[in-house]
Amino acid sequence: MKYVMVNAAACVLLACNTTQPEQTNLAQQLAAGKWIDLGYDLSDQTLYWPNNPTGFKLDTTAAGITPAGFYYSTYAFSAPEHGGTHLDAPSHFAENGVGVDKLTLEQLTGEAVVIDVSAKAQQNRDYLVTTNDIGEWENTNGKIEAGMMVFFKTGYGKFYPDAEKYFGTAERGAAAIPKLHFPGIDSAAAQWLADHKIKAVGIDTPSIDVGQSKNFKTHQVLMGAGIPGFENVANIDALPARGAYIVALPMKIKNGSGGPLRLIAWVAKG
Amino acid sequence: MKYVMVNAAACVLLACNTTQPEQTNLAQQLAAGKWIDLGYDLSDQTLYWPNNPTGFKLDTTAAGITPAGFYYSTYAFSAPEHGGTHLDAPSHFAENGVGVDKLTLEQLTGEAVVIDVSAKAQQNRDYLVTTNDIGEWENTNGKIEAGMMVFFKTGYGKFYPDAEKYFGTAERGAAAIPKLHFPGIDSAAAQWLADHKIKAVGIDTPSIDVGQSKNFKTHQVLMGAGIPGFENVANIDALPARGAYIVALPMKIKNGSGGPLRLIAWVAKG
Ligand SMILES: [Zn+2]
Ligand SMILES: [Zn+2]
Repeated sequence: MKYVMVNAAACVLLACNTTQPEQTNLAQQLAAGKWIDLGYDLSDQTLYWPNNPTGFKLDTTAAGITPAGFYYSTYAFSAPEHGGTHLDAPSHFAENGVGVDKLTLEQLTGEAVVIDVSAKAQQNRDYLVTTNDIGEWENTNGKIEAGMMVFFKTGYGKFYPDAEKYFGTAERGAAAIPKLHFPGIDSAAAQWLADHKIKAVGIDTPSIDVGQSKNFKTHQVLMGAGIPGFENVANIDALPARGAYIVALPMKIKNGSGGPLRLIAWVAKG
Repeated sequence: MKYVMVNAAACVLLACNTTQPEQTNLAQQLAAGKWIDLGYDLSDQTLYWPNNPTGFKLDTTAAGITPAGFYYSTYAFSAPEHGGTHLDAPSHFAENGVGVDKLTLEQLTGEAVVIDVSAKAQQNRDYLVTTNDIGEWENTNGKIEAGMMVFFKTGYGKFYPDAEKYFGTAERGAAAIPKLHFPGIDSAAAQWLADHKIKAVGIDTPSIDVGQSKNFKTHQVLMGAGIPGFENVANIDALPARGAYIVALPMKIKNGSGGPLRLIAWVAKG
């Protein structure tokens, strides 16, 4: 059995059950594929920008058998917004941009395309994704349409959470920032993406701007256009060039500039 | 146009395009409904159990025009795991239960049923959902099957975040705990849900156990069976009795006993 789109006349021919709820179709459709987790967990291994004085911390409030005789554990956490797999909201780099809690589910869900620049990025830690890379991808895979999400695969995800290999330096503190070397997206390519009204940009490096960026122009361009960024994306190898469906749900911090992101993709079974 | 399930013979008749990718079907299927947000945002208004000394805090790390001339804002947060719209992982009440990071996407996604007990719960702040309520629901709506998620609608969501009306007391500290009065789920009903191998339980109150619970037996039963709970669920009025598809993505805290939850539901357009 399979699902097909048919018009009303064909339905008469087939005696379609027109009262069949949409939901049944959706659940069966989803069963024809699987959800994949594109995020890292949060722990004391989670990577943060070198100038963050602290990273993710989990403190034990209770863990053990209570006086009443049952087991109980609970913890408290603290962290900067931007680390591990996380979302940059427009307000991170745009004064009038919306905060992470105001991004709509319409913006946070949709089809993804994956542009693989790993061959070049593995040769050059400072590789900048260009509009040319996007054009070459379109020549092979078809047009990127408004409302799609665009992921860039540099191949650097395999280094996470080894800071030396992933960031280019394991040093901490502001003095380490000039030593950051990892691939990112050129601001002209960012402008192309904004002009094409994509929903979001994802990358398997710490930032949508290259490690050597001083002015974060790609952040400025995309967030100025209201487009969020997904950084430190995991398992990007599991995504096809097109056809994945993304659900991106950041921690709903009121007026936050971003935050920890649960990012999953539905992919059809091979 | 609509989607219908047809067999191979009908496909020949219709000249079905058998090379149409599954994804196209999924995206079009999803476009026949919408995603609804079932979570509250996190702020200094977020409700926590009275004995939590602090709630959700957001500290400004930077917000304004940088010396380089562009706008930039970033924050850091801290909070207990269990407050606002959040998930209880099995390890919250089961010593050998999995932590929040180990819940699979298979367990965190699926069809929901919504059992409305609001008529009784509005009359009685200490109302306990019984197996009888589940039975009555099944008589009207059909069987609850293994792998479904079960949500209980008490109607108390409309009080959030007014602690006096939602918790039954706005007092803080351990001394306020005996003053908690809100509906929850009876432990025999919890055992019924565990026996029927449901995936998760949700409720529009602060806890799956009633406010007056001393031993949290419903937590013990469900989490002992590896079943997570969703608490402080928002917008439960937007869900149909059956047919919603849930995506529940908790903050991925390594070895966490739970945490902030982004909870969304896909619902067919009416
Ligand atoms: Zn960021
Ligand atoms: Zn809880």
